[in-house]
Amino acid sequence: MTDHLLDQPHHDGSALHVPAGTPALGDVVPVTVRVPRESGVDRVWVRSVRDGEPRLVEARDDGGTAAERCLTADVVVHNPVTPYRFLLDGPGGYRWLDGRGVHDREVPDAGSFRLTTHAPAPSWLGDGLVYQIFPDRFARSAAAADRPVPDWAVPAAWDDEPAGAGPLAGTQYYGGDLDGVVEHLDHLVALGVGTVYLTPVFPGRSNHRYDASTFAAVDPLLGGDEAYARFTAAAHARGLRVMGDITTNHTGEDHEWFRRALADPTSPEHGMYVWAESGPGNPDVATAPDGQGYASWLGFGSLPKLDWTAPETWHRMVTGPDAPIGRYLREPFGLDGWRVDVANMTGRWEDTDRTHAVARELRAAVGRERLDGALIAEHFHDATTDLLAGGWHANMNYTGFTRPAWSWLAEHGSPVAAHGLPVAGARRPGGAMVAAMRDFDAAVPWSVTAAQWNMLGSHDTPRLRTVVGSDALAEVATTLLFTYPGNPVVFAGDEVGATGDNGEHARTTMAWDQGARGGGPRWDASTLERYRRLSALRRGSAALRDGGMRWAVVDDDAVVFLRESPAERVLVVLARAPWSGAVLPGWLLGGDAEPERLYGAVGLAVGPEGIEVSGDGPAVGVFRLA
Amino acid sequence: MTDHLLDQPHHDGSALHVPAGTPALGDVVPVTVRVPRESGVDRVWVRSVRDGEPRLVEARDDGGTAAERCLTADVVVHNPVTPYRFLLDGPGGYRWLDGRGVHDREVPDAGSFRLTTHAPAPSWLGDGLVYQIFPDRFARSAAAADRPVPDWAVPAAWDDEPAGAGPLAGTQYYGGDLDGVVEHLDHLVALGVGTVYLTPVFPGRSNHRYDASTFAAVDPLLGGDEAYARFTAAAHARGLRVMGDITTNHTGEDHEWFRRALADPTSPEHGMYVWAESGPGNPDVATAPDGQGYASWLGFGSLPKLDWTAPETWHRMVTGPDAPIGRYLREPFGLDGWRVDVANMTGRWEDTDRTHAVARELRAAVGRERLDGALIAEHFHDATTDLLAGGWHANMNYTGFTRPAWSWLAEHGSPVAAHGLPVAGARRPGGAMVAAMRDFDAAVPWSVTAAQWNMLGSHDTPRLRTVVGSDALAEVATTLLFTYPGNPVVFAGDEVGATGDNGEHARTTMAWDQGARGGGPRWDASTLERYRRLSALRRGSAALRDGGMRWAVVDDDAVVFLRESPAERVLVVLARAPWSGAVLPGWLLGGDAEPERLYGAVGLAVGPEGIEVSGDGPAVGVFRLA
Repeated sequence: MTDHLLDQPHHDGSALHVPAGTPALGDVVPVTVRVPRESGVDRVWVRSVRDGEPRLVEARDDGGTAAERCLTADVVVHNPVTPYRFLLDGPGGYRWLDGRGVHDREVPDAGSFRLTTHAPAPSWLGDGLVYQIFPDRFARSAAAADRPVPDWAVPAAWDDEPAGAGPLAGTQYYGGDLDGVVEHLDHLVALGVGTVYLTPVFPGRSNHRYDASTFAAVDPLLGGDEAYARFTAAAHARGLRVMGDITTNHTGEDHEWFRRALADPTSPEHGMYVWAESGPGNPDVATAPDGQGYASWLGFGSLPKLDWTAPETWHRMVTGPDAPIGRYLREPFGLDGWRVDVANMTGRWEDTDRTHAVARELRAAVGRERLDGALIAEHFHDATTDLLAGGWHANMNYTGFTRPAWSWLAEHGSPVAAHGLPVAGARRPGGAMVAAMRDFDAAVPWSVTAAQWNMLGSHDTPRLRTVVGSDALAEVATTLLFTYPGNPVVFAGDEVGATGDNGEHARTTMAWDQGARGGGPRWDASTLERYRRLSALRRGSAALRDGGMRWAVVDDDAVVFLRESPAERVLVVLARAPWSGAVLPGWLLGGDAEPERLYGAVGLAVGPEGIEVSGDGPAVGVFRLA
Repeated sequence: MTDHLLDQPHHDGSALHVPAGTPALGDVVPVTVRVPRESGVDRVWVRSVRDGEPRLVEARDDGGTAAERCLTADVVVHNPVTPYRFLLDGPGGYRWLDGRGVHDREVPDAGSFRLTTHAPAPSWLGDGLVYQIFPDRFARSAAAADRPVPDWAVPAAWDDEPAGAGPLAGTQYYGGDLDGVVEHLDHLVALGVGTVYLTPVFPGRSNHRYDASTFAAVDPLLGGDEAYARFTAAAHARGLRVMGDITTNHTGEDHEWFRRALADPTSPEHGMYVWAESGPGNPDVATAPDGQGYASWLGFGSLPKLDWTAPETWHRMVTGPDAPIGRYLREPFGLDGWRVDVANMTGRWEDTDRTHAVARELRAAVGRERLDGALIAEHFHDATTDLLAGGWHANMNYTGFTRPAWSWLAEHGSPVAAHGLPVAGARRPGGAMVAAMRDFDAAVPWSVTAAQWNMLGSHDTPRLRTVVGSDALAEVATTLLFTYPGNPVVFAGDEVGATGDNGEHARTTMAWDQGARGGGPRWDASTLERYRRLSALRRGSAALRDGGMRWAVVDDDAVVFLRESPAERVLVVLARAPWSGAVLPGWLLGGDAEPERLYGAVGLAVGPEGIEVSGDGPAVGVFRLA
């Protein structure tokens, strides 16, 4: 099945359709829809929601080209989030255009476009890719060898394969450290990294450090506060931004606060945790040695849950003078922002839901230290409603990007691709991928879509190379990553072809000696070259970085889309298998220009019918059309 | 295009799938999915969201029939609203089942089923149809003739056609009153009415009275407080419930509170209204004679907007000893609940959104006076998120019922059917109607769906008969109304075939003399008989009243669905035109039973292939299968 979508009216929140910048309450924002002259659409209205009530305003002719009319209407921004969609009239009856597409029926507002007065993520997040480092596994400095192995840890050799399950998964200790990261910043710069994101650096009793025993100091095993300061200074000196990772939902059971809370029910720290009785209706409650029941992350007693109804929690975590949210953004560390772990559960428990309030206060606290600080949520699931509240700038976009992309490219029946589900993975047609992406993208403002952290994997998932099963499909996925709206995030190792069956197994070390292990190489130079090229391509293209997103052709085995900015139109062709190819209208070329091949080998020719895209596959092609 | 859906797994929130009753926090609720044995589904898990995080639990075999397996899994109710959906595995890859149907891709949580700890609407709302009366137009008692015509009013003769536009639409005065309603309660009882809902009875300067000048007394033009008390007593004596109509978003500009607010900026009343400066970014601001700008409903200065950030507003409207919400639920009036006008805008203005808080407080206030009181919102648009907050019991279901039903049955290009949109109406295929209904139904708990106020029209819309253009299609619509989940609401006059082009024009008087006017009769006895029969049919059927909703066949020109309760299975066939007919599996009959025709003339026969539904149309059929 092949859908051709270029004959449909189009709108997205990018600069061709909505003026750049963040509106304030009381602003009037002109929004433009582009209507193909052959679409049969005669008149257009914008329907926007103000104070809970929709209003219709007819759009006025606003120029265009021989191929497309531009129609523009004013939207009053009267609330922090203003949903809007377009009413299209013409022969055959009226239709609605929203973020999910064109509908010939009544639709709920969930799919509407949205303007928001909430400031977007800082633009520096888009200056280069975001590179995720899991400190234990990236690099060891010379000093690492001298550090005593902690009592919880099982030492591993650098080239050992990570355990994918069992107790070893959390205790296997490779000894990477912060000075090790500093030694390899050139690798990041060459890759086109703009932001380094490190998973937690606070001490804990695990290799992942999501079980912090304090937020007051950096783990000495990583080199301590001094090394963290050296790392951020070195990164900043190379023009990189640095983001930390903090757990707001829970601490470790060994955290100084929790130990005091357990020891003394009258302590201020006792009020910072959620105490409850375990039972069938409260399965996430763990029991302390003294019999006290406490809420914990998914029932793991090692991760007691913070109570965000307690002022003391706000004080210690966010608002107090030594609170970690602010402290690590100040000198000598100077972080540029936080990635927030388990953002989806933070502040949620029974009939209290403080998540949005916490997120807004975290954003405010980040902003107090650093006007252009960033705050990114980890919400592994449906974050759409949480992204409307003015707290998180964006989300780690597993649902709106990773899973749909995997579902199109994974081997059918792959045991790893259904990560987190107790079933085999399924290979879906292109239409399923695109529908899922549109469902999630449509539910948030464009300013969020344009800042989402898109990933092909992370420390919590299998590796892309394992999910898709071939290098050719990995290239298709990687090209999608670097050409899709939002910020590409790369988990260290993906760029050299790392493999892994699940989140733990995927936490492979970097093979800086470029040697092999067991069955194959651990440093795939051609993959690295691909990442470097695609990363540079994106940095050099206004359309790929900031342009809109317009699906052109959606086939079971191929998708074709346009990224369009006022200055540039880029065509992306991705095929997972041979397909029939397509002919696109010639007006996309805008004048006498010839398509310029920017990346990939897909055949493209300009013929009498238009732009002929060949049906090669697996294959990719990126072209500048105008 | 015809979709056959009975080979798909099914779940809804009705008693065959979820235990009756309202769960409390900490309850564990078993939910059951029915899986056709031929569906190819091997294993099923329920995915529920707890504190923002999904959890998967495998479903266990729980009996079933030769045709269907029942699989049940436990859902922990840990939050006031718990979304859940089913993961289905089998050859071809996993799929999701949610309120919108079966999906072979990732989907957002918006379509998930939902359990809620919020108490549902009182069951009496389902005891009979809800009958809407617009007091000026229903009936005049003898006393009405003696009342002086108010200065704003233009007297009309009872048989005059209502003005559809212009100043007369609000001032045309027919003089119906409350004792007039009392005189015709027998008509309601014969129709199977369970609840009488009267639009506002407070004095104003219009025939619709949505511009109240006080909430402290009933309009003397209607007979005043005494007549209102006589009316409620008479209705209660006949076993009817009575609901009032109140404006929480605004008052009239002539309201005693607003007059004091204008006169004295230091008065407590001044703080009850929203004051603002008019401008392009604040178009709903009106200007008082003294130059003060105030927020108003859609910019109509006659309807100044209440400020729900002001404690005085809460006190005067809801919490104070004389507040109208409570006062009219007490003796001598004894209302059974409220329909709340413009609920969607109440408490929403710029960056304040108190709507859910107001709704919850209104529900609490109703509950203080009457444990089984009802609170229904008027939200003409997408109310789905507002229906999750524990405030409104249900909504006037224009978006989830009226518009989809109209869209399937209206004449294509009808100027009236697109009511509220500046375009001609469109006639849509059955699939578009069903998809729209499922989108809206899926977004709220079943307990809300089962209590929605479904209408084929109201005092704010054209009349059904005018929208669909034929008596045969009006019968299809009416059959849908009485067989769809939720509470059927009938605007007085629909049951005798009233016509009208828009909300104002539709406010026709009741022709109690059963005479004609102009071109045709105003009292269609066959339509009345149809309403009586369908109403009685619904009252006598456990499945139609409380059963689940299972779409069986969806064709452009016909829809077939099942209503199923533990005691009964009812089949509904609705066709707007001739179609191909369908064969349904014989197991629906449950044993040796023969289908029992309950209503309508659609052909139905049991043959060797199953239950053969004939392709008659326009036609309807309602059958008891088991």
